[in-house]
Amino acid sequence: MRFLFQLLVITCLTHTSNSLFSAEQRNVLILFSDNQNWNDCGCYGNQIVKTPNIDQLAREGTRYEQAFATTASCGPCRGVFYTGLHVHANGQYGHPHGDHNFRLKPKVKTIFSLLAQNHYRTGMIGKYHLFPEDTTIDFKPKINGYRVQGMADLADDFLKQKSDQPFFLVMGFHDPHPTSRTQPEWGVKVKEQGMALETYDPDSITVPSYLPDRPEVRQGLAGYYQQISYMDTAVGRILQSLKAAGKADNTLVIFTSDHGSSEPGAMANHYEPGVRIPFIVRNPKLKQESAGVVSDSLVSLLDVTPTILDWTNTKGPKYPLHGRSVLPTVGKTNTPGWDETFLSHVFHEVTMYYPMRTIRTRDFKLIWNLEWRSKYPLPIDTLSRATWNETLRLQEPLLGQRTVKKFLFRDEVELYDLKNDPDEVINLACQPEFQAVRKTLSEKLLKHLEQTDDLWLKQYTLPVSCNTTAADQQSEYKSLFNGRDLTGWTLKRANRKGYHVEEGKLICPAEGGGFLFTEHEYSDFSLKFDFKLTKGANNGIAVRCPLVDQRPAYAGIEIQVLDNKGYPKKLKPTQYHGSVYDVIPAKRGALKPAGEWNHEEIIYRGSQITVIVNDIPVLRTDLAKITDAEILTKHPGLKNRRGHIGLLGHGSHVEYKNILIKEF
Amino acid sequence: MRFLFQLLVITCLTHTSNSLFSAEQRNVLILFSDNQNWNDCGCYGNQIVKTPNIDQLAREGTRYEQAFATTASCGPCRGVFYTGLHVHANGQYGHPHGDHNFRLKPKVKTIFSLLAQNHYRTGMIGKYHLFPEDTTIDFKPKINGYRVQGMADLADDFLKQKSDQPFFLVMGFHDPHPTSRTQPEWGVKVKEQGMALETYDPDSITVPSYLPDRPEVRQGLAGYYQQISYMDTAVGRILQSLKAAGKADNTLVIFTSDHGSSEPGAMANHYEPGVRIPFIVRNPKLKQESAGVVSDSLVSLLDVTPTILDWTNTKGPKYPLHGRSVLPTVGKTNTPGWDETFLSHVFHEVTMYYPMRTIRTRDFKLIWNLEWRSKYPLPIDTLSRATWNETLRLQEPLLGQRTVKKFLFRDEVELYDLKNDPDEVINLACQPEFQAVRKTLSEKLLKHLEQTDDLWLKQYTLPVSCNTTAADQQSEYKSLFNGRDLTGWTLKRANRKGYHVEEGKLICPAEGGGFLFTEHEYSDFSLKFDFKLTKGANNGIAVRCPLVDQRPAYAGIEIQVLDNKGYPKKLKPTQYHGSVYDVIPAKRGALKPAGEWNHEEIIYRGSQITVIVNDIPVLRTDLAKITDAEILTKHPGLKNRRGHIGLLGHGSHVEYKNILIKEF
Repeated sequence: MRFLFQLLVITCLTHTSNSLFSAEQRNVLILFSDNQNWNDCGCYGNQIVKTPNIDQLAREGTRYEQAFATTASCGPCRGVFYTGLHVHANGQYGHPHGDHNFRLKPKVKTIFSLLAQNHYRTGMIGKYHLFPEDTTIDFKPKINGYRVQGMADLADDFLKQKSDQPFFLVMGFHDPHPTSRTQPEWGVKVKEQGMALETYDPDSITVPSYLPDRPEVRQGLAGYYQQISYMDTAVGRILQSLKAAGKADNTLVIFTSDHGSSEPGAMANHYEPGVRIPFIVRNPKLKQESAGVVSDSLVSLLDVTPTILDWTNTKGPKYPLHGRSVLPTVGKTNTPGWDETFLSHVFHEVTMYYPMRTIRTRDFKLIWNLEWRSKYPLPIDTLSRATWNETLRLQEPLLGQRTVKKFLFRDEVELYDLKNDPDEVINLACQPEFQAVRKTLSEKLLKHLEQTDDLWLKQYTLPVSCNTTAADQQSEYKSLFNGRDLTGWTLKRANRKGYHVEEGKLICPAEGGGFLFTEHEYSDFSLKFDFKLTKGANNGIAVRCPLVDQRPAYAGIEIQVLDNKGYPKKLKPTQYHGSVYDVIPAKRGALKPAGEWNHEEIIYRGSQITVIVNDIPVLRTDLAKITDAEILTKHPGLKNRRGHIGLLGHGSHVEYKNILIKEF
Repeated sequence: MRFLFQLLVITCLTHTSNSLFSAEQRNVLILFSDNQNWNDCGCYGNQIVKTPNIDQLAREGTRYEQAFATTASCGPCRGVFYTGLHVHANGQYGHPHGDHNFRLKPKVKTIFSLLAQNHYRTGMIGKYHLFPEDTTIDFKPKINGYRVQGMADLADDFLKQKSDQPFFLVMGFHDPHPTSRTQPEWGVKVKEQGMALETYDPDSITVPSYLPDRPEVRQGLAGYYQQISYMDTAVGRILQSLKAAGKADNTLVIFTSDHGSSEPGAMANHYEPGVRIPFIVRNPKLKQESAGVVSDSLVSLLDVTPTILDWTNTKGPKYPLHGRSVLPTVGKTNTPGWDETFLSHVFHEVTMYYPMRTIRTRDFKLIWNLEWRSKYPLPIDTLSRATWNETLRLQEPLLGQRTVKKFLFRDEVELYDLKNDPDEVINLACQPEFQAVRKTLSEKLLKHLEQTDDLWLKQYTLPVSCNTTAADQQSEYKSLFNGRDLTGWTLKRANRKGYHVEEGKLICPAEGGGFLFTEHEYSDFSLKFDFKLTKGANNGIAVRCPLVDQRPAYAGIEIQVLDNKGYPKKLKPTQYHGSVYDVIPAKRGALKPAGEWNHEEIIYRGSQITVIVNDIPVLRTDLAKITDAEILTKHPGLKNRRGHIGLLGHGSHVEYKNILIKEF
């Protein structure tokens, strides 16, 4: 009779929920580790660290060899985990706590709130690390996430509770996250009664390739392993409680980690040690088939929320999620269509802005560093600890397999062949034979980012090839001076010794000079050059000038070249450096002291002339606006439409180099 | 009798509040303009724009010539305005709305909530632009901030309300903020009945120096002026309502703007057009003294909350505020101690991270661009509009008085002499005669940032001088090759033609070679050099080697130099480029194709040797760990503690340049 009633209720409720009062509840238990690298479990091949309970779970379930966090930062990663949305879309761009102050967007739903609508009893024990606090969670006792035995006891209470509702329980362990920002950096912080501590001999540890092999690193790893084993014990107890509560056969269990360790090269990176995580799923419906299976499907923490919705038959939010249920891949070694995953990072702390977007396939990883010009900001957890500090103190050139320099200053696009270069050191992004791969991966990545509402696409553009615009623009310039001789130049009024070439420089010696003109004529152009003055030096650049023996400043125009500060005589405003000589005065203060190299650009376009000295515009004028008849009569050259470019040596030592021209 | 009763009440309440039921209420009216440059009012000297009501307010009050927004971004600026805390401390780092999702920190109090505790009746009409919404505001009708007449009507309602409580009212105008991100970009959006529209002739406008003088800019300014005049009419009406309500004599009135216009160079910058704002205070207690006074005190929007707390005698929050009450400066031309102000910016939109910290004195401005390596991110409001788009389309080299390049790529520290360079173009930060100014200003700035809990100081360091660490480190290297001849080198086994120098390069010709050793010996060092290979080329670098005529790879050690891909014969692992020849193999894949320049660094320290090719570490080994007796016997040089460095030419054309050494 009671069963019949239940069946009726189920039938009535089936459109909104299949689980409430269901004869067979579909529960979920998440075991969530904190800062644990994928291969720091026995079942993932680590020969040192003891994780018997996680290994047992792997024997009973499916172990994923290629699982990923999409962002290697605690708070943001949890945003992804609990919402199924990328960090670039859910609002939890960085940490929620303290000064960082980030938060989920108001309209974003967490898996807790979605399950609450489906009448689930929800529990969150330990580290949650999101803002705002989720008010829909039924059971959220206060407990330090390092007190793993206390957490296991609370889980036992929760699992034992008599309820008609199915449950969703997350165990947010704080281990093996470092327990302090000073020494000792790792190791169990709060040893609870009745819990044994594994100890590891630092000397027996195999240091992973992304870290330097130094004593303080080994010590850190020994403590970190201790924390993993400590947490593993709690994992065993909780799974025992689940069994004792008679719920093992209808509870989906997932063990995973938020991201890799706090060591440099891992946390807050998109390199493998940062984002690759353990991921084990025990589906009680597939006990036989899935036991001990190792899956090569590429999954990510984006998939957790969709997986839970799928398993619990819960309605998702109105907006599409960015991951998908992994249930079809459970119990299978290969599943077609699970061959790539996408990662997205924005902040760690609010002072650590370093947006990255990444596509990871089986063979390749392409990382787009949107702020590649910036110095990579290490997370405070990394900055404050021994590995990094010793690296700096010892002035070590390397950090693991890459240089410290390359770790801090990254290429805009990084492309790695993971089979041949598992340490991700040799960037293939600009190698000709990998351009096709780069293009394909870039297109896939962009498509995914567009589909997932990546706001950053409005501000940044992924370069799909190595031909950057800057390089293109630079190549539009042609050299006027070959650095070896005066080919292409012709000398007028060669008083004294003229000009000569020395070590790639075109030199007007004090005893030399004259008018050294280009053989070609130019009309609209940008002329760039470097020049170095001696004290009080006087020279000039003729533009749109005929090949004259005298008065080029009148037959053409002359842009003054002059050491303003060192010039011994009083100057008129139109005699200072950069002026159109005798016509338009230039702004002063842009020149470097005599003896230093200056960079200048003269742009002549139509009647508009611009002179930029050391990136400071010193003159900008439209010569067509000169109406003073006296000036126009004195300077017929103001109306020239084309002419030669010339160096007007006046008997001072002046040096030029890198003389480039682009014609419009 | 009634008076006596009131007096009693006042006496009783005096410790918590002086204003409730006070015989003389002390009200506040804020008139808050949106994106208006300081000098775009008649009273600030603009000859074109008509602002009779603002001008009248200036005649009745004190007009500040040097008032500043601390951040030129709408949302963050309001965070500063309403809290009295810098953007780096209040949590409202960027915009609150939509995807940007920033918010005030939960513990930060707004002026509304502080006044509510002091029993004020608070009103906010128009644009608020903070998150979370302030639930303590009594009167907050929904109205579009461009409907200025509607806003004035609502203000009239609020001011007319009979109440024993004093009031605090903010009029958040949306004018002259651009009304659209496409054409027409400025101009009154919602013309209300009974409101006249000023029209301005684009041709009659004087384009300010920070903008290009082009038609679309003039059109934009004409519309922007129209919006200012439109808002000015509402200002007049609201001040009329205040008078009509009999409250003009006990209401402090402040007119100001959030920051400068949306044009490039203004919004989201710390340049004057971005941060300098109009600021007029009418203190009814100082009618006579202050009427028409122009103050040169440097004030900022940080001072608004403290000023209101002071005027209303309201208790501030528990934490210290970052500004101070301007009341002591009202009515005075000069007030000692008001000679500098501090600005702080973090974000505009969340994709536009560009932290800046600035000190502005009467004569100088020092801007610290924390992310100076990044490309300056223009706010979307600027990016999407005609001025910027035309600048790009025309490939204009300049934006106003600075280059587009310098606008986008800024120096880490900018120091401007505002008297001589009001356009802030000539950066004096590295000029020797301004180092003292730089140091003084830097120290003041740092002290202020420390006092105001600037989180960014944990991640960034302000360089107080031009001697950067990078330059220092570079200078520790000495050149081994002068680029002209072989001074300092000695040739052994000079088979064929040896080496020669050409255009600054040290060349081993195909028909030349031999062992070219440094005359000096080196022990622990970093050796850096550039090299270019021809196809299949074979060469080598001897290190810690005696001056031998043969077998330097055994008498010392040899780091292979070899074109891996082009070498015609089969190679052993220890023959590839970067290997310790015949001893330790190097990683492959770092070399560029033959004909391109490579950069290499060899670091030999104690027994540890590191080889880095093109920033990729290809070899890292501790030679002391070699225990194989056969190798040690064959290579006695492995144990050398010092020796010469040599180029080991093998009859292939190889070029070297920039050969530098640093000894440890």
